[in-house]
Amino acid sequence: MAESIRLAVAGVGNNISALFQGAELYRKMSAEGVAEADFPGIKRPRIGGIGVSDLTFVAAFDLHPNKVGVPFKDAVLAEPNNYPLLGVELPDPGFSVDAGLTEEDADPSSPAFRRIVERLRESKAEVLLYSLPTGLQWAAIAYARAALEAKVAFVNCTPELVARTPELLEEFEKAGVPLIGDDLASHLGTSVVHRALLGLLSERGLSLASSYQLNLGGNEDFRNLRERGASKRQSKINALAQEGVDTSNVEVIPSAGYVAHLKDHKVAMLNIEGLGWAGTPVSIDLKLKVQDSSNAAGVIIDLIRIAAAARRVGFGGFSAAAVKVLKSPAGGHPSYTSEDVAEAYRQLDAVTEAMAEK
Amino acid sequence: MAESIRLAVAGVGNNISALFQGAELYRKMSAEGVAEADFPGIKRPRIGGIGVSDLTFVAAFDLHPNKVGVPFKDAVLAEPNNYPLLGVELPDPGFSVDAGLTEEDADPSSPAFRRIVERLRESKAEVLLYSLPTGLQWAAIAYARAALEAKVAFVNCTPELVARTPELLEEFEKAGVPLIGDDLASHLGTSVVHRALLGLLSERGLSLASSYQLNLGGNEDFRNLRERGASKRQSKINALAQEGVDTSNVEVIPSAGYVAHLKDHKVAMLNIEGLGWAGTPVSIDLKLKVQDSSNAAGVIIDLIRIAAAARRVGFGGFSAAAVKVLKSPAGGHPSYTSEDVAEAYRQLDAVTEAMAEK
Amino acid sequence: MAESIRLAVAGVGNNISALFQGAELYRKMSAEGVAEADFPGIKRPRIGGIGVSDLTFVAAFDLHPNKVGVPFKDAVLAEPNNYPLLGVELPDPGFSVDAGLTEEDADPSSPAFRRIVERLRESKAEVLLYSLPTGLQWAAIAYARAALEAKVAFVNCTPELVARTPELLEEFEKAGVPLIGDDLASHLGTSVVHRALLGLLSERGLSLASSYQLNLGGNEDFRNLRERGASKRQSKINALAQEGVDTSNVEVIPSAGYVAHLKDHKVAMLNIEGLGWAGTPVSIDLKLKVQDSSNAAGVIIDLIRIAAAARRVGFGGFSAAAVKVLKSPAGGHPSYTSEDVAEAYRQLDAVTEAMAEK
Amino acid sequence: MAESIRLAVAGVGNNISALFQGAELYRKMSAEGVAEADFPGIKRPRIGGIGVSDLTFVAAFDLHPNKVGVPFKDAVLAEPNNYPLLGVELPDPGFSVDAGLTEEDADPSSPAFRRIVERLRESKAEVLLYSLPTGLQWAAIAYARAALEAKVAFVNCTPELVARTPELLEEFEKAGVPLIGDDLASHLGTSVVHRALLGLLSERGLSLASSYQLNLGGNEDFRNLRERGASKRQSKINALAQEGVDTSNVEVIPSAGYVAHLKDHKVAMLNIEGLGWAGTPVSIDLKLKVQDSSNAAGVIIDLIRIAAAARRVGFGGFSAAAVKVLKSPAGGHPSYTSEDVAEAYRQLDAVTEAMAEK
Repeated sequence: MAESIRLAVAGVGNNISALFQGAELYRKMSAEGVAEADFPGIKRPRIGGIGVSDLTFVAAFDLHPNKVGVPFKDAVLAEPNNYPLLGVELPDPGFSVDAGLTEEDADPSSPAFRRIVERLRESKAEVLLYSLPTGLQWAAIAYARAALEAKVAFVNCTPELVARTPELLEEFEKAGVPLIGDDLASHLGTSVVHRALLGLLSERGLSLASSYQLNLGGNEDFRNLRERGASKRQSKINALAQEGVDTSNVEVIPSAGYVAHLKDHKVAMLNIEGLGWAGTPVSIDLKLKVQDSSNAAGVIIDLIRIAAAARRVGFGGFSAAAVKVLKSPAGGHPSYTSEDVAEAYRQLDAVTEAMAEK
Repeated sequence: MAESIRLAVAGVGNNISALFQGAELYRKMSAEGVAEADFPGIKRPRIGGIGVSDLTFVAAFDLHPNKVGVPFKDAVLAEPNNYPLLGVELPDPGFSVDAGLTEEDADPSSPAFRRIVERLRESKAEVLLYSLPTGLQWAAIAYARAALEAKVAFVNCTPELVARTPELLEEFEKAGVPLIGDDLASHLGTSVVHRALLGLLSERGLSLASSYQLNLGGNEDFRNLRERGASKRQSKINALAQEGVDTSNVEVIPSAGYVAHLKDHKVAMLNIEGLGWAGTPVSIDLKLKVQDSSNAAGVIIDLIRIAAAARRVGFGGFSAAAVKVLKSPAGGHPSYTSEDVAEAYRQLDAVTEAMAEK
Repeated sequence: MAESIRLAVAGVGNNISALFQGAELYRKMSAEGVAEADFPGIKRPRIGGIGVSDLTFVAAFDLHPNKVGVPFKDAVLAEPNNYPLLGVELPDPGFSVDAGLTEEDADPSSPAFRRIVERLRESKAEVLLYSLPTGLQWAAIAYARAALEAKVAFVNCTPELVARTPELLEEFEKAGVPLIGDDLASHLGTSVVHRALLGLLSERGLSLASSYQLNLGGNEDFRNLRERGASKRQSKINALAQEGVDTSNVEVIPSAGYVAHLKDHKVAMLNIEGLGWAGTPVSIDLKLKVQDSSNAAGVIIDLIRIAAAARRVGFGGFSAAAVKVLKSPAGGHPSYTSEDVAEAYRQLDAVTEAMAEK
Repeated sequence: MAESIRLAVAGVGNNISALFQGAELYRKMSAEGVAEADFPGIKRPRIGGIGVSDLTFVAAFDLHPNKVGVPFKDAVLAEPNNYPLLGVELPDPGFSVDAGLTEEDADPSSPAFRRIVERLRESKAEVLLYSLPTGLQWAAIAYARAALEAKVAFVNCTPELVARTPELLEEFEKAGVPLIGDDLASHLGTSVVHRALLGLLSERGLSLASSYQLNLGGNEDFRNLRERGASKRQSKINALAQEGVDTSNVEVIPSAGYVAHLKDHKVAMLNIEGLGWAGTPVSIDLKLKVQDSSNAAGVIIDLIRIAAAARRVGFGGFSAAAVKVLKSPAGGHPSYTSEDVAEAYRQLDAVTEAMAEK
C-alpha cells in the first residue's frame, strides 16, 4: 500500500469539498468491506499504487474572508461553497487556510510569495492543486513558480496557460518536477455527451440541421459565467467540432442562468435536429443532471495521483497518463495516441511497484 | 454514370414506400441543382458508382389483399402503409405486385416458387430485397433460394438467419451471387444511441446504476411487436452489452405501445442513472424521434448498392462493405475490422471504375 | 387532541407501508419541532381534529405467504413490497397479519368471514381500509359486509363497486356506519396532470391535434397492469374527456412496461401536439416521476380521517368531504358542488369540536 | 356577414406577419370548404359578427430601414422578421409603410404626429394596433393620442401603461373610442402553463420544493430580452404567484439565450420539484415549443375584433370582453368576473346583430 499523497491546494472551493469528503467516503466504504473495484464512479482504483482515499491535506491557500485563517475542515464547508454534505465524518488535518497571493504580490521576490514557497516546503507537500476561479492567468503562473521552487508537483485544473507554456514546462522537466495541465475535462461533461451524439449522427450518415446546448447551475461558476459567456461559448463550440460535424448551426449557452436552488448541481439541455433518408427529420432532446463538483473531483483524483506518482519515481514535466482527463494537455491532443496514454500508466505503475519491492 | 439497379422486392411495406419516394426526391433535388455531396441523410453518394436515385423497380411480391394485383406505384401507398407522402411525383414502373409465397409453397418444386424464379429472370432483376415482417424464417430462406436460382443478389433486412447460414452462404459464393445480411442496423436507431451513451459513461469511469429504454410507434411493426416483445427485448438488451457495461439493471421495452396517430414515426425514451465521484448521481433523459421507415431506407440504399455493385463485378457471397449497416453480418461483427470494411468499399469502387473505363 | 384512529387494513401492500412509515415520519418531525402546517405534502393537517400521525394499526388481513402470520411491522416491509425505507424507527403494534378471505369463503356464514367480523370487533377497529389488488369485486363486497356487521367504517381505495351500490350504501346509512368510496384519486396522478394541460389548451382556444400518455413502474401494480391494460386504458382516456377536448386522437398506455429497478416509483411521459393561430404547431412534452404509493397514501390519510371522524360523530353512509380525493364517489361527481365538500368538512370539524368541549 | 376591419398598425414585426398571413390562410381554408368552427387554433370564429379573415390592412408605421417606404406586403416579410412563410398567396393592400414617430416628435403638435393622425383619418382606419418593441412608453402614449384624435380604436399589445392610465382611459370613454389593453397574454404562454402546474400541485396538497423556467428563442424579442432580463424576470415570477404557491424557490429566466436557428420558435423548459406524502419527491420536467408570433396573433385577432366591434356599436373605453387575453387589463384582473367577460361578449354580439338586422 502506497503512502498518502501530501496535498496542498490553491483555492478551497466546491471541488476541494468534493475531493475531501469523497476521499473519506471511499475510506468508509472500504472499512465496510466494499472492494476498491466496486467503488462507484472510479475507473482506476490505483494509479502508481495510490488509492482514492490516500490523501492527506497539508496546506491550503485562499483569499475569501470566510476561509482565510479558518481550520481547513471548516473552510471546506464555508459559503459560498454548497457541495452537499456526504454524511461522512471528516478528519481534521490540523491546519488553517493561509491567505493566498494577490496580484500585487505575484512576484517571486514578494514576502507573500516567499511565504507560499516556505509553507509548501515545511508542509512537505508533494502536489499543489491549482483550482482557483477561471481567468486569473497571473495566479496560475505564480503558484506554478512557487511549486517549482519548492519542488512540488503542480496540477492546473483551469484553462489558464501553464503546462502549455513551453519554457515553463522545460523548467519543470529540468528540475524533475511534474507539471500536469491544463484544464480538466469533466468526468461526464455536457461537451463530451454533446460531442458523442453529434459524432454518432455524422458517423451514421445523417445530416445535422441544427443543435443547441444550454447549461444551468447554482454555484459560483454559474454566477460568474453569466458574465464572461462569450469566450466560454466559443471554446465549447470548438469542443464539438469534429470530422463530419458542421457547427455553423450549433449554439452553446455556457450559462443559461444562475438558479440558486440548484446549488452545486448542473443541468444541461441538448437539442439536435438532423435529417435522415429523403430529408425526413430526426430529433434528439436530452437532459443531463450532474453534481458539478463531483464531475471535477472524479478527474482531479486521477490528476493528483499521476502527479504524485510521477514525482515519487522522478519523472519531471508532463505525463501522457493525464491526456484523456485534460481539455488542453501540454503539446495538444494530437501529440498523443491512446497507446501513449496506456504506456504512461504502465510506466508509473511499473516503477512504483519496483520501488515498493525494494 | 452507372446504370440503375434493377430491383425486385419481397414485401411492399413502409420501407419500400420510403425507398421508392426517397429515390425520386433525390432525383428531383439533383434536377434542381443540389450536388450529391449535399444530399441530406446520405453518407455515400456513390457506391460502386451507383447513386441513390439509380433505382428501377422491376418486380414485387406480397400477400396483402390491398397490394396483390395492384400497380406497384399504388401498392406502395396502400394501407396499412402510412409512410408520409413526400410531395414528389412518382414514376409508374409499369408492373403490378405479384402474389408472394405462402408457407405451403415454400418448396422449390412448387408452382408458386417456380413462378417467383421465372419472374425474377424475366424482369432481369439484379437484386431481390427481402423485407417481409419479422419472424418468417421459412419465407426468408425460400426467397433466398429463388434469388440464388435466378442468379439475383439477395439482401436480407430481417433478423431471420440467411447470410449467417454457412451452407447457404457457400452456395451463393460458388454461384458468384451476392448474399448480403442479416438484419439491418437502423440509420439512427435507439440501440445505437443508447449503446453510445452507456459506452461513454463507462469510458469516462462512471458507474451505471440503472437504465431503461422504451419505444413507441404507430406502424405495423409496433402493432406486431406488442405481441412478440420478449425475444426482441433480449436481443435489444444484448445490443447494449459492451466492455464495462453491466446490463443487469438495464430494461428495454421494444414496444411500449402502439400509438396510431404516430403513424410511421418512432419515439424512444431513454433514461440512464449513473454514479460519479463519491457515488453522487448523474442522470440522463433522452427523447429520440425518427421517421421509422426512413431509418430503414437510409441503410437499405447502401445494402442494395453493395449487392448490385458486387454482382456486377462478379463478387459472390457476403461483402464486408455491408458490415457496419447490419446487426448480424455473416460471420459475426468480430470477424471484421474497420479496415476490412474500407477495403471492401475500395474494391467495389475500383473494379467498377475499371469496368466503366472499358 | 383527538384520539388515534384504530385502523384495520385488508391488504398489506406498498400503500400500507407508505401509510405506516409516513405517519411515524410526521410524528418524528413533530417531535423535532416542525409545525403541522409545515408538514410536506399535507393539505389538511387536521380533519375532525385528527392529525396525520394519529393512527393505531389494530388488525390486518392478507393472503400472501410472506405476510400471513407475520408480525404486522415486518409484513409491511416484506416482498414483493418495495416502498423505500424512510429511515424512521417503526413502532410494533403488537399483532400479526391474519389470513384474509378467499373467494370460497366470501359468504357471511363461512367460518372465515365470521373470524374477520370477530377480529374487527375485538380489535375495536374504527375503520377498515380496503386496498387489495384491483379486480376482486367479490372481496370488496365481502369485506364491506364484514365491516358493516362489525359497525366499522369502510374505505374502498379500489375501482370495485361498493359505495356506488345504492342498496349497500343504504344499509350503511341505516346502520349509522360510514362508507367512503370508490377508487382513490392519486395525490398527483398522471391523469390529473394530463387533464389539466388538455383543459388549458382548450380554454386558451388552441386545437388538440394528438396526445399520448404512458406510464412505467416497478411495483406489483405495473406487473399486473401489463395484462389487464385494455379496460384501464379506456377508463384513463375517459378521465381526460372534458368540454372542448376531443379524445379521438389521444392514446393512453396504462403500463408501457414493468421496469423492476424503478421499484415503487412511477414514471409517466406525456406528449401533446396542438395547433395555434394559422394552424402553426405547439408541442408539450412532460415527464412526471412520483413515488407511487406515497401518491396513494397522501389521499388515504384523508379518506380514513373522514371515515373515522364521521363514525365518531354518528354520520352513516357517504361523506361529501371525500369527493375530491375519489375517482368515483357514491352518486357520481356531478352530484356534488365544491360548496358541498366544504360544508361536509365544516360539519365534521364542528361536531368534533362540540364533542371535544363536552 | 360583417365588413372587414380597417386596420392600421404601429410596428411591422413578426406579429403582423403572423396576423396578415394567417388571415389569408383561414380565408383559403374557408374557400376550400372548411367550416369556421373547425378552424385550427380559433376559439371564437366570430366576435361582433367579425370573422378571423375579415381584416383589411390600411396603414402601417415603422422606423426600420428595411420597412419604411416599402410596400406593406413586402415589409411584412422583410428582415429581421423571420416568421415562417405559410405558403398562402398574400394580397397586396396597396400601400407602403410610413415612417413612424421618433421620440423627438412625440408631441401632438409635431409635424410627424400630425401626419400620423392625418394618415389614420384618410385611411378610414377603425383600429390602430400598437405592437412596437417593449419599453417605449412614450411611443405607446403618442400613438394612443393620435388614435384618440382620429377617433380610431386603440389596442395596446405591450406592457407599456396605456389603458391602465385612468385619465387617458377617461378621455377615450368620453370620446366614444375603444381603448383595449394592456399587454397581451400569449395564446399558450410559458407562464400560463407553469402557473397551471404550480396551482395543480398546491390544489392537490403537495408542497413545492423548487422550480425553474427558462425560455429560448431566435427572434428579436429574445435578442433584446437577454439585456433587460431583470424586470421581465420579476414580472414573470409575479405571474406565477397564487394562493398556496410560495415563489421563493422559483426561478424564471426570461431569455436563457438567443438561438438564431430557432427563428420565431420559442422553446421553454420547466422543472418542478415537489414533496408528497412523507416528504417523498415528485418531479415534473416539461418542454414547450411554440411559434412565438402565432402565440401573439392568436390573441391579437380577438383584441382587434373586440375593438372594432365596440367602435362600431359606439362603446368607448375598455371592454371587459378582452380581460382574459390581457396580462394587465384596465382596472386590473380582480375587477372582473368570468360573468362580466361573458356579458361583454354577449352585448357586443347582440348590438351587432341588432344593427345587422336594420
